[in-house]
Amino acid sequence: MSAVAKRSRRSRARAEEAARPGSTGEKYREMSVAEFFAKNKELAGFANPTRALYQTIRELVENSLDATDAKGILPWIHISIRQIEGSEDKGGRPRYRVTVEDNGIGVPVTSMAMAFGKVLFSSKYVIRQTRGMYGLGVKAAILYGQMTAGTPVEVYSATKGSQYVYMMKLVIDVQRNEPRILERGEWNKRGSWHGTRVTLSLEGDWSRAKSKILEYIKRTAVIAPYAEIILETPDGEIYYFPRSTRKLPKPPRESKPHPHGVDIEQLKSMLRNTRASTLREFLVKEFQSIGDKTAQDFLERYGLDPGLKPRELLKKGREGLLRRLVDALMEYPFRAPKSDYLSPIGSDIIEIGLRRMFNPEWVGAVSRSPKAYRGHPFIVEVGIAYGGGIEPRSEPLLLRYANKIPLLYEEREDVSYKVVSSINWRQYNVDFPAPLVVLVHIASTKVPYKGVGKESVSDVPEIEAEIRNAVQEVARRLRLYLSRKAREEEAIRRSVTLAKYIPEVAVSLAYFLRPPSKWQPPKPEEVKKLQEALIKIVARHIELPPVDGKTEDPEAIVRRIVESVELE
Amino acid sequence: MSAVAKRSRRSRARAEEAARPGSTGEKYREMSVAEFFAKNKELAGFANPTRALYQTIRELVENSLDATDAKGILPWIHISIRQIEGSEDKGGRPRYRVTVEDNGIGVPVTSMAMAFGKVLFSSKYVIRQTRGMYGLGVKAAILYGQMTAGTPVEVYSATKGSQYVYMMKLVIDVQRNEPRILERGEWNKRGSWHGTRVTLSLEGDWSRAKSKILEYIKRTAVIAPYAEIILETPDGEIYYFPRSTRKLPKPPRESKPHPHGVDIEQLKSMLRNTRASTLREFLVKEFQSIGDKTAQDFLERYGLDPGLKPRELLKKGREGLLRRLVDALMEYPFRAPKSDYLSPIGSDIIEIGLRRMFNPEWVGAVSRSPKAYRGHPFIVEVGIAYGGGIEPRSEPLLLRYANKIPLLYEEREDVSYKVVSSINWRQYNVDFPAPLVVLVHIASTKVPYKGVGKESVSDVPEIEAEIRNAVQEVARRLRLYLSRKAREEEAIRRSVTLAKYIPEVAVSLAYFLRPPSKWQPPKPEEVKKLQEALIKIVARHIELPPVDGKTEDPEAIVRRIVESVELE
Repeated sequence: MSAVAKRSRRSRARAEEAARPGSTGEKYREMSVAEFFAKNKELAGFANPTRALYQTIRELVENSLDATDAKGILPWIHISIRQIEGSEDKGGRPRYRVTVEDNGIGVPVTSMAMAFGKVLFSSKYVIRQTRGMYGLGVKAAILYGQMTAGTPVEVYSATKGSQYVYMMKLVIDVQRNEPRILERGEWNKRGSWHGTRVTLSLEGDWSRAKSKILEYIKRTAVIAPYAEIILETPDGEIYYFPRSTRKLPKPPRESKPHPHGVDIEQLKSMLRNTRASTLREFLVKEFQSIGDKTAQDFLERYGLDPGLKPRELLKKGREGLLRRLVDALMEYPFRAPKSDYLSPIGSDIIEIGLRRMFNPEWVGAVSRSPKAYRGHPFIVEVGIAYGGGIEPRSEPLLLRYANKIPLLYEEREDVSYKVVSSINWRQYNVDFPAPLVVLVHIASTKVPYKGVGKESVSDVPEIEAEIRNAVQEVARRLRLYLSRKAREEEAIRRSVTLAKYIPEVAVSLAYFLRPPSKWQPPKPEEVKKLQEALIKIVARHIELPPVDGKTEDPEAIVRRIVESVELE
Repeated sequence: MSAVAKRSRRSRARAEEAARPGSTGEKYREMSVAEFFAKNKELAGFANPTRALYQTIRELVENSLDATDAKGILPWIHISIRQIEGSEDKGGRPRYRVTVEDNGIGVPVTSMAMAFGKVLFSSKYVIRQTRGMYGLGVKAAILYGQMTAGTPVEVYSATKGSQYVYMMKLVIDVQRNEPRILERGEWNKRGSWHGTRVTLSLEGDWSRAKSKILEYIKRTAVIAPYAEIILETPDGEIYYFPRSTRKLPKPPRESKPHPHGVDIEQLKSMLRNTRASTLREFLVKEFQSIGDKTAQDFLERYGLDPGLKPRELLKKGREGLLRRLVDALMEYPFRAPKSDYLSPIGSDIIEIGLRRMFNPEWVGAVSRSPKAYRGHPFIVEVGIAYGGGIEPRSEPLLLRYANKIPLLYEEREDVSYKVVSSINWRQYNVDFPAPLVVLVHIASTKVPYKGVGKESVSDVPEIEAEIRNAVQEVARRLRLYLSRKAREEEAIRRSVTLAKYIPEVAVSLAYFLRPPSKWQPPKPEEVKKLQEALIKIVARHIELPPVDGKTEDPEAIVRRIVESVELE
């Protein structure tokens, strides 16, 4: 049968199908969430080989950090990227084998296959500040590996409590969104090792991704100075980021939902699962920021029956009551969400980090007090560095972080860019081009990313206002520094005029201090002594404003000038 | 038991759980894709009540258009938005009931529950240019409605071939991502109505969303002048967008995958499902752009066995061969993807639309020839409007469309913004502030949106280059117009100098034309006649360049000037 005949038969069949009563000719089908993210890989940040390699490293490193610093363990992370031999031969596109190993809490063997083989399976679906949020990232990397290299992921893991190290090689069954295990093993632990080691292969573009990957790790190291990170590159280089402190930040804790952030669906699910027997008990037990007294006042204010059984609210015909309850929960002035669950970086670490990265002339940072948006607590932290080793640029260099993740792509869509680029820096004595770096960190139990690739944060009004306040707070300190510096420079300029005559005056004075009859060339020690006296006199009239908490010694300044003057 | 005692018991239980061998204290669980998009509603464009109302309208209207113009039906779409009475009482937040009805192909009753009650269930998972892509939008709106209004969605639908109209009220079971039908009905059709009518309730902010929703419909109407759209607003206003042409564009058709766009996972699935018995047959049958001859040449060039059974490639140990096949498919210079499957707007409709919207002085448009990126065909179309009713602005007003959807949010992240803002407009004789509008449309079987909310397009290099070429092509025509206009203005300026003396000269001549003995005041008709003659003489020396294909009559210009001169 010819191709033409076949085609016409096919289109006839299609026409018949379309003519069946009720049919529209449309082919409906279900798509698994694994297939969805495989087909639309750009949504999760895997738009091309460069981004894919970068994103893979990111997702693995972020999982490693969540399994270490967030669990009170000093992180040790080993990243290795190797080009697969022969992958570039015969016009093939280069593939890389990526391995990331950590000393984290490990993945229990009972969850291992699902944690790596099922999209939307995670331990992070709780109210807690974690880098991972979606239960998607590593699986998206594994899918991308399957699609471009065709090989399984290999996972070794041991938990602290277990006597075994477990291994699995698996692929994700894309149609069914299920792990398919190809190989498994278990060994008795020799030492006390615990952690996870993930190896996968994928198509990539190291030469383009390199600078972004290095920048990512550098920026991670800056705010996680307690982490030891080793990167082996395909070029055979090794980048070592040593641990510079053993002080770990307080790990974030899990919390209960805040009443301001709950919607009808969530409320229904909470009502369905609660063990509370009355509405009042339900409120106190299942929410944060509601105590006995608050519950009573709340229920009275809205005329709700405290003794109502929670399941009663789920019955048919109660939709109106449910809606009223949600509106009331949103409206009542409950205590703000608890922030002791959050784990900020801290202004000291931000300052140290900026100093180490840029060796600037001035650094300032602030860790603001917690705020909330729609029931989600958040903390904004801002650091500013100025001058010194920073290259002057036509706009501020912006370093963005969210839940301790450095964000490198899609800067212009980010709420931080919106704020920083809208600030009138001239007001803070900064004239562009200027050597200015601004670091913004947002910590929250729910960072409102614009996409699952986690590269930019939405402009939620509450967050935007906090970033603005934080930047302005540090910028005001910078202005103080810059204006004091300007005043100091003026004082120095004046004293220079005076000080540079000191050597000559000292010599003249040495002549004049003898009676005319004894005039003869003065001895160097005499001149030296006079010079010292003059330095003291001049220095006494110089008033230097304190800069950065310290005041430079005026005498030292005058002495430096004097020493630089050469007598003719 | 006191709250403190309870808490300590709970934390002890947690500590014990964590101490169990192999446990890490982490609670792993699966999340359905419905719950995922409910929890992360901002990802699908439902970030706040304003965006949610806008996004709901969008998703419903886009479904209606896909069910009409893409199926050869002249669209009739009725949108109604009503505030639910009492929803704002007692501090409640306003809720709206949204209904969108169309005369489309309808949804078969067998797929109805799933099409509205299951996220990632769709008829659009084929290679075809459609507005919908993800099988997500309407379901995200329904979920948002459930979460904020707590009510089910109500769907009426009838297909062309069916004798019945079907109705369903359903909610999405968020935990299981399944429809839960609360009510259903069916009626005998009275007339020949077919189409779909969807009603849902949700929290919204009409006062803020209004301008965006109107803009969205206006921009839709501009490029779909064959559609009749009626919008009833909560303020009781009715906006009517009449049909201005009955000419429908050619509907897009479904196509087979192009070999340049296939990955290993997709190839595996194609090999698994094919009825072809040899590799050669497989290539010809399952791909577009591969004929018998091309298949032969391809297989020879890469030393692949044409007789190999497709399933053989799926066997263990064949991963290397599979990888080689994918690389070869990507590398071989196959014919570009077929574009007759695409449905562009057309430069004529773009020009008409821009004229109607802005009443500009000049309009130009181009519909470029098809190109492809990673196996996906696409067409870029650009229209430019200048002057007339357009307000001068400091940068071009950009109208973005993708697969005939107007995109209103996230402009600065869009590839079109990147191109249009980087063009040196001065080169095209445009100095800002200028009255300039640029419309960019991208039609493709796969638009590379940055997020599932479909608001901005990624900067894929091939698409970026095409947009640049298209904008430059039309901008060159604009330059031609503007420089001719400048030359015309110069010619007119010169003739003005001459023409404004005509009345005076005509009077003088009238005196001089009589012999001195008969001097007397000339009659008006004599002056008029002379004036006419002078106008003809002056006009003969004016050379006007054609503008926009037409040349204005020089005589008319001179006459206008003469008429404006008042003799003293």
